[in-house]
Amino acid sequence: MDHATTPAQAKPLDDGEIEALDAYWRACNYLAVGMIYLRANPLLREPLAAEHIKRRLLGHWGSDPGQTFALVHLNRLIRQHDLNVIYLAGPGHGAPATLAHAYLEGRYSEIYPDRSQDADGMQRFFRLFSFPGGIGSHCTPETPGSIHEGGELGYSLSHGYGAVFDNPDLIAAVMIGDGEAETGPLATSWHSNKFLNPARDGAVLPILHLNGYKIANPTILARIPHEELTSLLEGYGHRPYFVEGDDPERMHREMAATLERCIDEIQEIQQRARTGGDLRRPRWPMIVLRSPKGWTGPRMVDGHHVANFWRAHQVPVTDPATNPESLKIVEDWMRSYRPEELFDERGAPVPGLRALAPCGDRRISANPHANGGLLCKDLDMPAFRGYAVDVPAPGQRYLSSTQVLGGLLRDVMRRNMTNFRLFGPDETASNKLTAVYEASPKTWMASMLPEDQDGGELAPDGRVMEMLSEHTLEGWFEGYVLTGRHGFFASYEAFVHVIDSMFNQHAKWLEKAKLELAWRAPIPSINILITSLVWRQDHNGFTHQDPGFLDVVCNKSPEIVRVYLPPDANCLLSVADHCLRTRDYVNVIVADKQPHLQYLDMDTAVRHCTKGIGIWEWASTDQGAEPDLVMACAGDVATMEALAAVQILKDKFPGLKIRFVNVVDLFRLLPDTEHPHGLPDRDFDTLFTIGKPVIFNFHAYPALVHKLTYRRHNHDNIHVHGYRERGNINTPFELAIVNEVDRFHLAMKAIDHVPELRLRGAHVKEWLRDQIIDHLEFAHTEGIDRDDIRDWTWTS
Amino acid sequence: MDHATTPAQAKPLDDGEIEALDAYWRACNYLAVGMIYLRANPLLREPLAAEHIKRRLLGHWGSDPGQTFALVHLNRLIRQHDLNVIYLAGPGHGAPATLAHAYLEGRYSEIYPDRSQDADGMQRFFRLFSFPGGIGSHCTPETPGSIHEGGELGYSLSHGYGAVFDNPDLIAAVMIGDGEAETGPLATSWHSNKFLNPARDGAVLPILHLNGYKIANPTILARIPHEELTSLLEGYGHRPYFVEGDDPERMHREMAATLERCIDEIQEIQQRARTGGDLRRPRWPMIVLRSPKGWTGPRMVDGHHVANFWRAHQVPVTDPATNPESLKIVEDWMRSYRPEELFDERGAPVPGLRALAPCGDRRISANPHANGGLLCKDLDMPAFRGYAVDVPAPGQRYLSSTQVLGGLLRDVMRRNMTNFRLFGPDETASNKLTAVYEASPKTWMASMLPEDQDGGELAPDGRVMEMLSEHTLEGWFEGYVLTGRHGFFASYEAFVHVIDSMFNQHAKWLEKAKLELAWRAPIPSINILITSLVWRQDHNGFTHQDPGFLDVVCNKSPEIVRVYLPPDANCLLSVADHCLRTRDYVNVIVADKQPHLQYLDMDTAVRHCTKGIGIWEWASTDQGAEPDLVMACAGDVATMEALAAVQILKDKFPGLKIRFVNVVDLFRLLPDTEHPHGLPDRDFDTLFTIGKPVIFNFHAYPALVHKLTYRRHNHDNIHVHGYRERGNINTPFELAIVNEVDRFHLAMKAIDHVPELRLRGAHVKEWLRDQIIDHLEFAHTEGIDRDDIRDWTWTS
Repeated sequence: MDHATTPAQAKPLDDGEIEALDAYWRACNYLAVGMIYLRANPLLREPLAAEHIKRRLLGHWGSDPGQTFALVHLNRLIRQHDLNVIYLAGPGHGAPATLAHAYLEGRYSEIYPDRSQDADGMQRFFRLFSFPGGIGSHCTPETPGSIHEGGELGYSLSHGYGAVFDNPDLIAAVMIGDGEAETGPLATSWHSNKFLNPARDGAVLPILHLNGYKIANPTILARIPHEELTSLLEGYGHRPYFVEGDDPERMHREMAATLERCIDEIQEIQQRARTGGDLRRPRWPMIVLRSPKGWTGPRMVDGHHVANFWRAHQVPVTDPATNPESLKIVEDWMRSYRPEELFDERGAPVPGLRALAPCGDRRISANPHANGGLLCKDLDMPAFRGYAVDVPAPGQRYLSSTQVLGGLLRDVMRRNMTNFRLFGPDETASNKLTAVYEASPKTWMASMLPEDQDGGELAPDGRVMEMLSEHTLEGWFEGYVLTGRHGFFASYEAFVHVIDSMFNQHAKWLEKAKLELAWRAPIPSINILITSLVWRQDHNGFTHQDPGFLDVVCNKSPEIVRVYLPPDANCLLSVADHCLRTRDYVNVIVADKQPHLQYLDMDTAVRHCTKGIGIWEWASTDQGAEPDLVMACAGDVATMEALAAVQILKDKFPGLKIRFVNVVDLFRLLPDTEHPHGLPDRDFDTLFTIGKPVIFNFHAYPALVHKLTYRRHNHDNIHVHGYRERGNINTPFELAIVNEVDRFHLAMKAIDHVPELRLRGAHVKEWLRDQIIDHLEFAHTEGIDRDDIRDWTWTS
Repeated sequence: MDHATTPAQAKPLDDGEIEALDAYWRACNYLAVGMIYLRANPLLREPLAAEHIKRRLLGHWGSDPGQTFALVHLNRLIRQHDLNVIYLAGPGHGAPATLAHAYLEGRYSEIYPDRSQDADGMQRFFRLFSFPGGIGSHCTPETPGSIHEGGELGYSLSHGYGAVFDNPDLIAAVMIGDGEAETGPLATSWHSNKFLNPARDGAVLPILHLNGYKIANPTILARIPHEELTSLLEGYGHRPYFVEGDDPERMHREMAATLERCIDEIQEIQQRARTGGDLRRPRWPMIVLRSPKGWTGPRMVDGHHVANFWRAHQVPVTDPATNPESLKIVEDWMRSYRPEELFDERGAPVPGLRALAPCGDRRISANPHANGGLLCKDLDMPAFRGYAVDVPAPGQRYLSSTQVLGGLLRDVMRRNMTNFRLFGPDETASNKLTAVYEASPKTWMASMLPEDQDGGELAPDGRVMEMLSEHTLEGWFEGYVLTGRHGFFASYEAFVHVIDSMFNQHAKWLEKAKLELAWRAPIPSINILITSLVWRQDHNGFTHQDPGFLDVVCNKSPEIVRVYLPPDANCLLSVADHCLRTRDYVNVIVADKQPHLQYLDMDTAVRHCTKGIGIWEWASTDQGAEPDLVMACAGDVATMEALAAVQILKDKFPGLKIRFVNVVDLFRLLPDTEHPHGLPDRDFDTLFTIGKPVIFNFHAYPALVHKLTYRRHNHDNIHVHGYRERGNINTPFELAIVNEVDRFHLAMKAIDHVPELRLRGAHVKEWLRDQIIDHLEFAHTEGIDRDDIRDWTWTS
């Protein structure tokens, strides 16, 4: 920890270079302020007047000058060392900085030719900022060079790590806001350095931007003693360098020297690992940039602190259109950047500035890694049919479907050892995906002990990512796919809610990128397996029972989200194979880890999953005629119980015409007008009839099926059973009973709704009630389900 | 940082005391193992046989011995210093430890007399653990002395802080699992010490349990160098003391001495603050307990590492019922605790053990703070009508409803300066609740600068809790209410999804505590105001638009959740007053911070909110007759647009009979059979008719209204408009238009569905379409809404 708080040794930076860097910085800042204020007179060639000011002032100034400062210096570094650098703006509410930078690099005008590098283009660039139909004040997908929007705070660092995994020559410079640093996801993502292999992966350079304030408060990290902050960052495994102050000249010198030093250290570390084979976890450098919030902006306005205070967060001067004094403050402020020196006659950056930007793809705003679809290679997929489970007859054999999936994932891993990773919070083994360890150990750069080889090996070059933070894993995964690589995330169902909000944000990013930005190439999908499902959380109890993630997912755009509930192993294989080949989706797959009945041989499974919904003839008794009852289901336990109910009904009511429908692709339930996977009404009616009772046994909360089938002709006759928020410590079958997804309740429901059974079914209902009491009593006496349930198989 | 890594000076602990402590520890461990394995022969008075073993082995051993070790030593400390201590088990999957401890203290048998302190009771105690109808393997609400279940990891420390705020003599000993420590919420909650005032609040003693392993991996913090961990914990602002090893005798000595030292330091800090007035943030002590996972359990089983490895996590020996060798391992293991010395003839703990437990309420398992309802005092509430906004006529005046609420909250704060706090992530001012600062500054124990007094003052004795971590805030709030105090949490609507999962877990806790545990006294409700709503996130863009938290909430038990959408300020006052008086709920209030039209004077507002749903006669034209159309709404913008649509329809179609219905209490839409607030079908039918078209303009995703009204007679005629996941940078009205919640789309929908308008309405539809185009064009030219929209008022 010797060097940690020593300021970096300044390499000489000559005055000319300082002047040039400063000019570039002023140009960025000028543009940032222009975006917030101006609708006309973009170059201030006339005196600033009220009519030049936007009618609605929106946008965020506070973190802009610090960010532009870092960007200008990163540019210098890229040119000096021909580096491959992307930039992630953690303080998302500082888009003016990144937008200004992209505009100065010329990249903005390449993508949006109407915002060209001239006076007219600049005016449009200013006007469209935070303007209806224009662009936002975060680094939205519309921002060239961005893979991190920052609309919701906390994920910049994990996104940065995700981007550099398996990208050995990439450096992700991650600006972390000191506000963002207070969030939980950010606070733990510092530990990502225990999973970064300097030989195989690129580097992350965190720049903690200590500008001191959030929206209306100081930040914690800016208000703890210097030594305490140093300890914290060293405790996270970094070697922090501090660049602190407000004098531009001194700050330029220090920033340049510090960045040089960081790059030297990064390259040294990488060299040691790559040629020297030293794979011990290094102490990676990082920078603490302590610069005033709203640096170079107005200090006091109306007697209140603005620069270097939280009031600089958004629009520092709010009334220039109506208050001549304020107008003067804004004009003086903008002219302090000396725009006449920065832009030529036409309004284009002067040649001196242009020369400071890197060229072509080296520009941060044009780096192809930030448009990862461009670099994306298809996965080399093994033939998934090769992993098929033998199913000579439906419903005879119990198997863990995820265990079977493990075999497929193992071989996907083996064939794609540089662009596929598996993510899961300490649960890969628990979730029975253990076969992947045959292809690759778990990634681990912290210290190791001999016993670590006793099951589930750890290694610096492992490709299975396990950390007990769903946030960090999801952040890595998003960073990995946004830069064009593939992955698979497995999580306990109840705790995937931890990343509800991250899912929302990624889905929103994808929607804009996919539907509105032709220049963004499609990226691999986020594939989330939710397992350790509610119906087998009987022993973990109530806290582990929550299938509600699907409700969150189904609120997002139909162009983006897909939900699959494969009922058995062969279906899971088919679904997983499909998902891994897709682009620009979030695919959610629901499949349990426990042994479940297997139903379909591989050919049948493929046909069934391709249709996404279908009649299981072997379980039906309607022989293609109009049925008396449709028994439908989605999910593994739901399917088994629905089948068992059919068996009871067949036995008790021979001649009853039952149609059995299984749903794999949940969005088949929606009309085709609402979702690309939706079934046309005619097809839906053919399956579900237009007037017969449908009993739908569903894996999750029942209202979701009602929502999806709301506009169907027969929806009044659809009776959905699902999780009803009932549970505690139960046997599996008892848990099914208390939520009424068990065979007995389903059969009772059938008797209630099939007119011809209502009368003659009374005694059967009695019998069903007795069965329920009997099973509950047995569970409470013996602590297990009765054998006849546990070993139930289908009899045709 | 001088002392930080110096081991604590061991105070002499005589051999007799060590022996006694060790006996107590062995008794706890014996009971923990017994819970996992035994269905009979609880005291091992016979040789252990297969039939004594449970038929299904469930539960978690790994963290138990470390936790019981800490508990035994905390007991000693409580007795020595007559301390008031509660214990929070972060490693939730270690309930055998806390259950054993509660049983030995006699508290368990007081609450559950069938599990008495004798052989029979012990056998039942063992059997019911992880047994259907019994108790779980986390510290569920059924666990005496628990306020923290730990089923989902990450919240132990923030819960601990919440518990000690305003409880100056309380100490929360928080055991933090090193797995849990990897989660984001836990990682940032260390910073809670910047918000703890040593004069006014109690103390938290974090005990980081470094037992080295999670389910199937080492933990990060156990695998970084000692100095790095020390740096990290010092960086978090603590003074860490390390107790490390596996030799019980040495560990007892060190733990006793270290705890003594920590208590000395805590008391010294408190004294300095309380009598010396020293309110500088101290460096609070904490303990790192590095003990083997599964300590004292079997080391190797079947050639695999178990103790001191991750295999000790759950059931270390899995087949004792069928494998005689395994049976012997279990028997030897259990007998190693020498049960014959620990329990008397009857099976009760020997007197020597009993003497070691604290007495009465000092017992951790009986501390009333962990059954906070017992200590809860009603809020002293000001008369909320005193804050009423003057509304001479409906729909004439714009006001920020949350600003008005700020006044009420200020006076609630003033009258309850020891048991009410306001929580919000750096957004209290942004959310316009600024008036509360008149009653109390923001809590701040980090360093301060003079300019901090320039708006939104900070102070050590502030009661407004602001940190940029929704997780930490919600954790504090939960800890605060679980110990019987009151609060209010305001969050941006989109980002309340960050705590979806915490909400789920708290709702589940409440449900069990409220419905099944008579001994748990009701606690104050969690009150969440969601504001900065989707409809005014036009300028922040798509990332800030997500009203889906309500969907998560509505999946939880109707006994626990309440959702209110007050349309204006007086309604918000009435709703907030009601919520603050309730117990055992999560109340979600949806109200925006921007100026909105005001509709109801206070008397009318109270009547309307008390009913929760009702006809607004002044906006209706049906004169009590059967209407042609019901225009319904919930939410502020939704209400304004619905009213404006009515005005258009009145104007274009004089004579049309429109009924206007506003919904405040969302669960009124459900039938009374499904929710205590549900309307009986008859009342619903009276309001919504049984055959007329209903246009429902809803604040959030439309499917939620469909879900709630699914079983209503008229549901086929209910057409819901709401957020359709469309948005970007828009004007407010443009955002309404693209999601079709605007007046023009609503009026068009009315024309489509009221039979007599369908023909004669064609030209009006044309006109409405023109209006839409006109407004969109204006927005895209001017960047603002047209004046006639912005200043719209109701004309009767």
